[in-house]
Amino acid sequence: MLKDTRLYQLVEPITKALEDNRQADIRPFLDGLSSAEIARLIDAMPKETRQLVWPYVSTEQVGEVLLSTHKKLRHELARSTQESILVESLGHIQVDELADLDDDLPAEVLNAMSMVMGEQQRQRYETVKDYPDNSAGGLMNIDAATVRADVTLKSVQRYYRRLRVREEGLPEHLDSLMVVDRCHHLVGILPLITLVSADQNAVVDTVMQKVPSSFTPLQSDADVARVFADRDLLSAPVVDEDNHLIGRITVDDIIDVMRNQADKELLGRAGLDKSELMFGPLLPSSLRRALWLGVNLLTAFMAAWVIGLFEASIEKLVALAILMPVVASMAGIAGSQTLTVVTRGIALDQIGRGNFVKLLYHEISIGLINGVFWALLVSLVVYLWFGSWKLGIVFGASLLIGILTGAISGAIFPIALKRMKIDPALAGGVLLTTATDMIGLFCFLGSATLILL
Amino acid sequence: MLKDTRLYQLVEPITKALEDNRQADIRPFLDGLSSAEIARLIDAMPKETRQLVWPYVSTEQVGEVLLSTHKKLRHELARSTQESILVESLGHIQVDELADLDDDLPAEVLNAMSMVMGEQQRQRYETVKDYPDNSAGGLMNIDAATVRADVTLKSVQRYYRRLRVREEGLPEHLDSLMVVDRCHHLVGILPLITLVSADQNAVVDTVMQKVPSSFTPLQSDADVARVFADRDLLSAPVVDEDNHLIGRITVDDIIDVMRNQADKELLGRAGLDKSELMFGPLLPSSLRRALWLGVNLLTAFMAAWVIGLFEASIEKLVALAILMPVVASMAGIAGSQTLTVVTRGIALDQIGRGNFVKLLYHEISIGLINGVFWALLVSLVVYLWFGSWKLGIVFGASLLIGILTGAISGAIFPIALKRMKIDPALAGGVLLTTATDMIGLFCFLGSATLILL
Repeated sequence: MLKDTRLYQLVEPITKALEDNRQADIRPFLDGLSSAEIARLIDAMPKETRQLVWPYVSTEQVGEVLLSTHKKLRHELARSTQESILVESLGHIQVDELADLDDDLPAEVLNAMSMVMGEQQRQRYETVKDYPDNSAGGLMNIDAATVRADVTLKSVQRYYRRLRVREEGLPEHLDSLMVVDRCHHLVGILPLITLVSADQNAVVDTVMQKVPSSFTPLQSDADVARVFADRDLLSAPVVDEDNHLIGRITVDDIIDVMRNQADKELLGRAGLDKSELMFGPLLPSSLRRALWLGVNLLTAFMAAWVIGLFEASIEKLVALAILMPVVASMAGIAGSQTLTVVTRGIALDQIGRGNFVKLLYHEISIGLINGVFWALLVSLVVYLWFGSWKLGIVFGASLLIGILTGAISGAIFPIALKRMKIDPALAGGVLLTTATDMIGLFCFLGSATLILL
Repeated sequence: MLKDTRLYQLVEPITKALEDNRQADIRPFLDGLSSAEIARLIDAMPKETRQLVWPYVSTEQVGEVLLSTHKKLRHELARSTQESILVESLGHIQVDELADLDDDLPAEVLNAMSMVMGEQQRQRYETVKDYPDNSAGGLMNIDAATVRADVTLKSVQRYYRRLRVREEGLPEHLDSLMVVDRCHHLVGILPLITLVSADQNAVVDTVMQKVPSSFTPLQSDADVARVFADRDLLSAPVVDEDNHLIGRITVDDIIDVMRNQADKELLGRAGLDKSELMFGPLLPSSLRRALWLGVNLLTAFMAAWVIGLFEASIEKLVALAILMPVVASMAGIAGSQTLTVVTRGIALDQIGRGNFVKLLYHEISIGLINGVFWALLVSLVVYLWFGSWKLGIVFGASLLIGILTGAISGAIFPIALKRMKIDPALAGGVLLTTATDMIGLFCFLGSATLILL
């Protein structure tokens, strides 16, 4: 039931059991954990511990744990699993899930898998394999439970009872059946509660929901997730251009999409990605982070270059050196606020031609109000600190310009990046910092040079 | 079906219709949109447009739209709705949802609501009202569809058919029934597909799932969401300490929790919150953002103060002023990478006493590798730029120390904040920047003063 256990509380006793050579104690810790939980627990362990614990994961869960984990760890774990165990465990997952994994599995395992698959399964596998992972097609299950529109509820129930007796596993997470016509066109959806509670002699056609939300296989997973969330869907059909039913997306897949999105966004802002293992091997981890540090070093050196242009001014008036980081930092903060609001609006489908100009105007107004307020305040502070009202005014005015630059860049960059098909959540921040740093510093040092020296 | 329409594409034609006085054209744009979509559409409109469109939202949807929107907008919209319409529309939402809204509704409306509520409804309302919104109790519905363990499937079906005939609305999003004993203790869960497909003469007890994941009313919504995601749940029971069933949480509520979490995290990093309307009134918007700018101004001035300590050194060697922002910025970036990894690990329940020291060691190692690499590179760059190998070495060494400071602070701060019950996602960033700025600058300017001057 895992009501109050925290995953991290398992890391220590498991490590301890390994150290004390009490291997028999390890399995019980894993019992009752879901595959996603085991994946996360293993991810939280240093490599040596991980490798020792992995063999204790039950064969039924191995496939699903691999599915729940990220590419890097998946590779590592798959490589350290016996081929026969891998093949057996993969038999426990659905073929559409297998299609998500296959890039990361050894070729021999895939060959062995396709030997044991039935003809129907192989066909399904081939269907799903070709859709990109981040599309509706990549998300869907193909075991869509269907019924015909012209049969009675009673016979639908009888059919499912026969299926169960023949043990032809029913799809997981079933809340409704897809209703199709003779040619497998989607015509509606029959919620299970309707199947149970409506008159059993009624024909499906008369009690089903006629216009269900449906998706096409190439729609992006982010779009699908948004519609699921907006419409409180538990499952939805995927149809081709002729409205033939080809699959079914369930809400548990949508939750994974949402988790991954949030993760990607969070990690992306620090130049990281999901393959960033908590205890990944040092060199590759360092290399990935080094790339981001390098990009930012470039940005920092561009700012340094701007400062270098005013070397002579700083030599004469060292207060400039003291105050310049303040201008750059405030411009950056104001910009990141606008950037966040606009990037979020884009992701929520709220910003377009109809309101962008108004939004820009709104952000500039906020920038103006805050800019003027803080400019007045810091002018005073600078006057008190350095005793020069001229320096105070130059500093305040530059701060105002910096904050406005931030607001304008923060609004325009994400829209422009979106147009260029670059994810604004990932690239927006660096671009913004570069702009606010350079413009803010240039304004401050430039106007100081002109007016004060 | 809204397959390819983008919400923002509706803003322009609706605004246009309003300008041209074609009021009759507005309703059709809203038709077919879910309440969540209408809420987001309205949020994307400037205030004057919003106020004109709001009356065209159908009375059935008004309550749900209010529910989907955020506090600020909710207040505004509720105030501009006729009391009678508000009361009627609130009749369309569930009492547990009403409990989420009630803080934002005018007292007269609440009084009118409690007049029209039945006794049972009022009791349910009182039960839910007392749980915090961000707890399992605040999330749950109290219309839990239950069955007794000792009846046959056939009679369960008959019961639900009678319910339907009497039009006593069945709960939404039903995938399973909660199984209880005579004293309303939870004993299991009966998935609808089992109800349909198992032998109809079987007793519930023999076919139900016996140990369902369940929650207690005071568990945090974040914990509940994590378990739902980890275990692919569609719904789950909420029980009190004596295992009495008191409600049911459904996955659509969990999706809202996840959306809100991601939102909060994203906005929080820029010192914003969800009430940050895209077109909120200028002064309150500016004020909220000003607070964050103020916090950051303080940080910036603390860094400026450190620089000020070395005024004399900068006067003698202006290259220090040019290079110092580079040290501070790189230390900040390295720190934010570690901070992100650790904060995420905490949220995913992966970090605890068992692995924190190893994690700290791991992060320091990455910092060391990257620090040494970039230190060597920038030393060379600085030597080439300024022609002083001493300056290059001082700069490189400070960069290394800065990056290490970032790694250590990035690992320790979120853990410490978590201990102090402060959300590390919100406060971590500012604290980190303050530390990396001050330590980085102090190291660089201090060692330069000692060694170079």
